[in-house]
Amino acid sequence: MSNSETDAPPMVGGVGTCSYYKNSYLQRRSANVVKEKIDEEIAKKLDFHNLPIASNTFRLADLGCSVGPNTFFHVQDLLEAIKQKYEMQFHTSQIPEFQVFFNDQPMNDFNTLFNNLPQERQYFAAGVTGSFYDRLFPESFLHFVHCSISLHWLSKLPEQLLDKNSPAWNRGRIHYTNAPNEVVNAYASQFAKDMENFLNARSKELVSGGMIVIISQGIPNGMLYSELQNGVMFECMSLSLMDMVKEGVVSEAQVDSFNLPFYAASPDEMTEIVERNGLFNIERMELNDPAAWLKRRINIPEWVVHVRAAMEESFSKHFGGEVLDELFDRLTKKLSKFSDELELKYREKTLLLVVLKRQ
Amino acid sequence: MSNSETDAPPMVGGVGTCSYYKNSYLQRRSANVVKEKIDEEIAKKLDFHNLPIASNTFRLADLGCSVGPNTFFHVQDLLEAIKQKYEMQFHTSQIPEFQVFFNDQPMNDFNTLFNNLPQERQYFAAGVTGSFYDRLFPESFLHFVHCSISLHWLSKLPEQLLDKNSPAWNRGRIHYTNAPNEVVNAYASQFAKDMENFLNARSKELVSGGMIVIISQGIPNGMLYSELQNGVMFECMSLSLMDMVKEGVVSEAQVDSFNLPFYAASPDEMTEIVERNGLFNIERMELNDPAAWLKRRINIPEWVVHVRAAMEESFSKHFGGEVLDELFDRLTKKLSKFSDELELKYREKTLLLVVLKRQ
Repeated sequence: MSNSETDAPPMVGGVGTCSYYKNSYLQRRSANVVKEKIDEEIAKKLDFHNLPIASNTFRLADLGCSVGPNTFFHVQDLLEAIKQKYEMQFHTSQIPEFQVFFNDQPMNDFNTLFNNLPQERQYFAAGVTGSFYDRLFPESFLHFVHCSISLHWLSKLPEQLLDKNSPAWNRGRIHYTNAPNEVVNAYASQFAKDMENFLNARSKELVSGGMIVIISQGIPNGMLYSELQNGVMFECMSLSLMDMVKEGVVSEAQVDSFNLPFYAASPDEMTEIVERNGLFNIERMELNDPAAWLKRRINIPEWVVHVRAAMEESFSKHFGGEVLDELFDRLTKKLSKFSDELELKYREKTLLLVVLKRQ
Repeated sequence: MSNSETDAPPMVGGVGTCSYYKNSYLQRRSANVVKEKIDEEIAKKLDFHNLPIASNTFRLADLGCSVGPNTFFHVQDLLEAIKQKYEMQFHTSQIPEFQVFFNDQPMNDFNTLFNNLPQERQYFAAGVTGSFYDRLFPESFLHFVHCSISLHWLSKLPEQLLDKNSPAWNRGRIHYTNAPNEVVNAYASQFAKDMENFLNARSKELVSGGMIVIISQGIPNGMLYSELQNGVMFECMSLSLMDMVKEGVVSEAQVDSFNLPFYAASPDEMTEIVERNGLFNIERMELNDPAAWLKRRINIPEWVVHVRAAMEESFSKHFGGEVLDELFDRLTKKLSKFSDELELKYREKTLLLVVLKRQ
């Protein structure tokens, strides 16, 4: 097993003003939207009568957990639903012991995660470092896998994006928003490969009857990313960087060679990948409204702070930390210019919920 | 389960010049002295025919692992001995999967640990935060526990040491070296309580037939700590601090209220505790020579750097970080004055090896 690094950025560590720890409540609200649906799936589909539980211990993993605190809330919610189902099936309050594995990449700030573990947790906690596109656990070890707001990060960028001779060369853009089909397809095919690796690894690690819940950025079937509110954001990032090229702050070659490894799949795409893999039953696959984005006109500065806490490491690695403030300032201004357009963009069914069960 | 903090200091984090990562090779050499003996115990006593191994996974925990790299070497050595024994018993190279849990306190620098995990490791790794005097794992989960150079750290200091009305008030000293019997007894009784908690927790976590290997600072039966080379070090720490009191750098009250939670048990003491607990068989209990200290005249500056990497957090928490340089400079000078006396002090059988087997 290697310390596999992926191209996905670690979230900003620590608990300071700019940290992901302090700036991830929008992600939390999004995930909360689907809480009831997940509870429902657990109540209906998790079947303790047919689940091998060795030594009376139920094991759950949160993959791509970041630094907290969202992961702690999700785990707590999941464990409550799981306990309820157990009590319902066995008419007993003598529940199993729970062991929870918090996973993220080696560059994740596990010190922050460990220092903020809930004091009164009713489970044994452990941290596991590594890419969830590889094996992380022994065979038949886990009963439940949760993967929230992280599977849209690709393990790596398609090489063609940097190849000047390829039709998928992604010149002057940092994402597939508004890009030629070849670029979109390169992203899509990397996503499919990653997802296949994810499913293969989990198929070994999960016991038969074990469940996977994925909450991820998604997109309605047949829609283009440029039609989404998020697409405007990626477009404005590209435009801000190209402005900085004009002013000599960064070079054109730097922008041409930079791409964000972020891909949002449609339900049809995801269904095809899971069916082709053939090791899991699809219990639920649907797009949801990410509530936080819907209720009011978007607060651009708040949005940018969240985007920065999740993505700045990517930019900083490529362009250097010294351009970050300028870049995100420009992004805020650029988005403000497009604020009316932003409100017209699609932002409803963009949260993909996938519930799978190991055959 | 709570984020139990103990009084034992975390080792200095990171990988810088003063880090424990860079300044723990003396500890490693000490532990290496007993490597062959541990291999021998595994070959003789670990019995796979009577060890319940669910899902073909063998689970090992290194408790008090610190930041590395020593823990990685120990784990590698242990796994090799364990694999050999397995192959010997089953005449097959189809060995189980291995899962290794690295444990230390919440204040330990797990980021450094995770970032330095061996690239080509043949095991699934996980980090577990918490005091090993409490439960860390579910029931019947582990097959092997290793605890190297860390059980001599008490979970907390006996309260009497700070009580002016108690005969165990440890005025003007920071350890039980050269202290009245009441002080020594207070330390000893805290150690016995801690060890009892350690054994009770492990008795739940280990499967029947599972093994514990403890390598710890020890002392021959009936010897006083002041007779040891280490005793001179603690004494020189007290003297250096009292010099700093005279010069007004720290206050006398600060020194009186500070004690190091460090206790070295004798084989007789340890035997009594394990037998009273009654849940483990003693497979081996012996004192060894810590090789690094024996072969040559002690290199005082090198020794102090190691002591500082392991202990500075205790001093810094109590006296403030700004006095550390002065304190350890004074300690080096003070020890140099006593360098001839140091060479005469006892330093042979001070490494206690304990091998236990869960009944």
